[in-house]
Amino acid sequence: MNRERPSLRDRWWHIIFGTDTEAGRRFDQLLIVAILASVVAVMLDSVASIHERYGVWLYGIEWFFTLLFTVEYGIRLWVSERPARYARSFFGVVDLLSVIPTYLSLLIPGTNFLLTIRALRVLRVFRVLKLAAFMSEANQLGAALIRTRRKIAVFMFSVLVVIVIFGSLMYVVEGPVNGFTSIPRSIYWAIVTVTTVGYGDISPQTPLGQVVASLAMITGYAIIAVPTGIITAEISAAHVARRYQRECPGCHRHDHDPDARFCKQCGSDLPKPDIGA
Amino acid sequence: MNRERPSLRDRWWHIIFGTDTEAGRRFDQLLIVAILASVVAVMLDSVASIHERYGVWLYGIEWFFTLLFTVEYGIRLWVSERPARYARSFFGVVDLLSVIPTYLSLLIPGTNFLLTIRALRVLRVFRVLKLAAFMSEANQLGAALIRTRRKIAVFMFSVLVVIVIFGSLMYVVEGPVNGFTSIPRSIYWAIVTVTTVGYGDISPQTPLGQVVASLAMITGYAIIAVPTGIITAEISAAHVARRYQRECPGCHRHDHDPDARFCKQCGSDLPKPDIGA
Amino acid sequence: MNRERPSLRDRWWHIIFGTDTEAGRRFDQLLIVAILASVVAVMLDSVASIHERYGVWLYGIEWFFTLLFTVEYGIRLWVSERPARYARSFFGVVDLLSVIPTYLSLLIPGTNFLLTIRALRVLRVFRVLKLAAFMSEANQLGAALIRTRRKIAVFMFSVLVVIVIFGSLMYVVEGPVNGFTSIPRSIYWAIVTVTTVGYGDISPQTPLGQVVASLAMITGYAIIAVPTGIITAEISAAHVARRYQRECPGCHRHDHDPDARFCKQCGSDLPKPDIGA
Amino acid sequence: MNRERPSLRDRWWHIIFGTDTEAGRRFDQLLIVAILASVVAVMLDSVASIHERYGVWLYGIEWFFTLLFTVEYGIRLWVSERPARYARSFFGVVDLLSVIPTYLSLLIPGTNFLLTIRALRVLRVFRVLKLAAFMSEANQLGAALIRTRRKIAVFMFSVLVVIVIFGSLMYVVEGPVNGFTSIPRSIYWAIVTVTTVGYGDISPQTPLGQVVASLAMITGYAIIAVPTGIITAEISAAHVARRYQRECPGCHRHDHDPDARFCKQCGSDLPKPDIGA
Repeated sequence: MNRERPSLRDRWWHIIFGTDTEAGRRFDQLLIVAILASVVAVMLDSVASIHERYGVWLYGIEWFFTLLFTVEYGIRLWVSERPARYARSFFGVVDLLSVIPTYLSLLIPGTNFLLTIRALRVLRVFRVLKLAAFMSEANQLGAALIRTRRKIAVFMFSVLVVIVIFGSLMYVVEGPVNGFTSIPRSIYWAIVTVTTVGYGDISPQTPLGQVVASLAMITGYAIIAVPTGIITAEISAAHVARRYQRECPGCHRHDHDPDARFCKQCGSDLPKPDIGA
Repeated sequence: MNRERPSLRDRWWHIIFGTDTEAGRRFDQLLIVAILASVVAVMLDSVASIHERYGVWLYGIEWFFTLLFTVEYGIRLWVSERPARYARSFFGVVDLLSVIPTYLSLLIPGTNFLLTIRALRVLRVFRVLKLAAFMSEANQLGAALIRTRRKIAVFMFSVLVVIVIFGSLMYVVEGPVNGFTSIPRSIYWAIVTVTTVGYGDISPQTPLGQVVASLAMITGYAIIAVPTGIITAEISAAHVARRYQRECPGCHRHDHDPDARFCKQCGSDLPKPDIGA
Repeated sequence: MNRERPSLRDRWWHIIFGTDTEAGRRFDQLLIVAILASVVAVMLDSVASIHERYGVWLYGIEWFFTLLFTVEYGIRLWVSERPARYARSFFGVVDLLSVIPTYLSLLIPGTNFLLTIRALRVLRVFRVLKLAAFMSEANQLGAALIRTRRKIAVFMFSVLVVIVIFGSLMYVVEGPVNGFTSIPRSIYWAIVTVTTVGYGDISPQTPLGQVVASLAMITGYAIIAVPTGIITAEISAAHVARRYQRECPGCHRHDHDPDARFCKQCGSDLPKPDIGA
Repeated sequence: MNRERPSLRDRWWHIIFGTDTEAGRRFDQLLIVAILASVVAVMLDSVASIHERYGVWLYGIEWFFTLLFTVEYGIRLWVSERPARYARSFFGVVDLLSVIPTYLSLLIPGTNFLLTIRALRVLRVFRVLKLAAFMSEANQLGAALIRTRRKIAVFMFSVLVVIVIFGSLMYVVEGPVNGFTSIPRSIYWAIVTVTTVGYGDISPQTPLGQVVASLAMITGYAIIAVPTGIITAEISAAHVARRYQRECPGCHRHDHDPDARFCKQCGSDLPKPDIGA
């Protein structure tokens, strides 16, 4: 990010990746508008009555935005200090996936509707709009979720095993006659039930099946408490961690609020807090 | 709020906005009764069999209350120190919206059923019934929710993007034949699924669609933990602080930890916290 | 509870209300068995095929238990120090409601199935089985829930107002043609939706209705976080409160774990904790 | 676990139970693959079209894995220091249940689909893959859940009583005409409703029934907060303590508060906590 080299490539870098120049902000705002417009166009094109009347126009719009975003992706690769790193980053992958469906639809018709993955690009909005506070909150949230990933993984894995067993049990108990035509389909039913979605497209008909289903429902209803507890504990702990930054010179107590000036234990002066990121 | 000027306008102010005089309390109680009566009348009028027999009466009642509330709204504007501020406040807007539907129904029949927005006026009940403790609880809740608004906004925005992508994916996978007739409708399905409502009016029919739907359900089931964690962490932090609330005799700051002996702001001695049962 | 008066009434008091004598425990165990047996009998009697074959027997069993419980209720009133207080207590009311349906069914057939309210009597099981730890947990839970009652009330009241408005809106948007035949029925739909139950017996058919329904679902999905946060904060706070019982003689710090022997701040000896209920 | 006796039995012990030798790791990896393969085979066999074409092959695979796991179970019993203890342990019971269905299917056709209980064996994956961190997280989660078991039991028992009463009430209110054909079936409906699953296979038709159903839904929606609160409070408490874990040099106690300077048990100086990012 050598900002002293005022080359063409560098100027483009500032426009496309930067948010600290007028041009950079203008570019980002236009980008958001273009993304939203292209996503709305794809959505509208999927409505039969609109497709009939405006299909040709929407097809043109789709190709226009796809070519635009393709060029943009190329420029991003060109101006990046490390193109490979950008290409492998979250937004790099999303940027690529956002143009592929149109080209792919030349081979496999219909895939162009996957263009709505472009909506993910809009997540840049937090950065674009200079909403530093939002970015900070998003980062805090993301960090807390990342710290819980192993506990959540253990939990999800255990739940999936329970779902497989409930699904198989229902296949044996209810059988193909009552809509549980195979174990995979019964597992689908178990997921619908344990997550408390409950479409009702498949539902138990026999008394024994209803007993097993009741157990599955109560299980799903009760265990939702577990990931909630995990994530809440992590977010709460982050609040606590913010307090362990300074030690009182008088009594050596070290859990002070970031806004404390005096020790709450002995009334001594506290050192100024280190205001980090 | 100059209470020494015993003018007519001032007396009305005490009756309508005040809760510290007998007349003010009486007025508020009558108001709640009138609001509830008018909401019930609107509800009953929507039931076909009741409308047939008592429609004329209910129509009269509706106009009676609308005129009454219109006059009340006018008086509120008149007696307010700052009419514009009242008109823009939450209850000011609600008060206005509570009379518009009847007048609007002269132009667009049917809109009068929106009169039930009057129910929002009943939220005044907490103030009216002198339930100071309830008001305090409501304010605490509101303050906690306001502090989490940015985190919740980031979360909701991300969820909406995920929903758009799931919806589009299902449109491509299932297609119009299986009820996913357009991307907007598929997004409706995705909302029904991710929120675990699960009407079952649209449900996946193909094995691949059921796999994608399962992912959507598990996503919805797992991520509910996130807003819960955010709000819980916030309420918990506020709660502990408030439960042992003390005011510093030096600087009057009152958000002290329950284990604080000295004010973190000015270092003054704090009174001992009241440790209840 | 004068236990020195060995009168007949007093002996019965020990048998029926006490759990500290062999006879008292025996009585409570028999009572639980009798309650469960009578509830199961009522349930079985409601199954048509069983009613046809064993209806007479089950009818006899129902009257047998009802008379038994009636006599028991009479004795409870007789032996209580303060009969009126028992009669107004939670279990006193439940005990009375547990016998009324049978007598009522002589006047209004079918009400005897309400006898399953007897199941509430089984909640005595925690006391009966001498599960002191369970009682303590139940009391802790109950106390935490009671402390949150005002916040929960404010929340539920606000949710109900939102539900009324969503219901009316859908009545106007969808109308009787699409199953929203009246505002009360639309409110029923709104409750089904906001609580994320989602039967699907009534569901929006028009695009605008689906947009409104989506808002209702997202509302319901997001606000579940609020009562969860309230209750979690209260339960967590109860954990914290247990620590504010002793003050360190050295540094006056007063948040010590119940099992601490030395001050965690200055290492001084702590006074022994006061082991309360 | 005498590891100095290099007998055949001991070598097998290391292979089957150990994870510290190359052979032990290899064995565990093969076991996981075998378990997954056998579960997938059972699932596929339940799909009618696959069964028709590959049924004979899948039947052979099923018997192959069953015999393999039977032999493995025998070896596990043989090499265990305390066979009875292994047989009664969680994985011992699962290992046995994982082979029974195939043998049982000779007597009762169809029970072989219960073989998917083998999926539970895959929970060994956390140990197998040497994912110590995962094991630790799983243990932490398990420990927190075990500490809440009594509170959760009290809660679930109370919920079941409420469900029984709601079920009976709906049976009386709606009756067999509207699908509530018996109290057990009405209780099934109540579980579907209170857990917010809401299939819609049975739903209230009368206005009064819809009012009762609304109460059941709101109850279910509100009380989910209770187990969540219980578990969150427990996980939070454990979490903060664990995150700043230190061991007392004097008495080796290691559950110290993050702000402790001296051991609460013996008053020794504690090392400073590691305050990470």
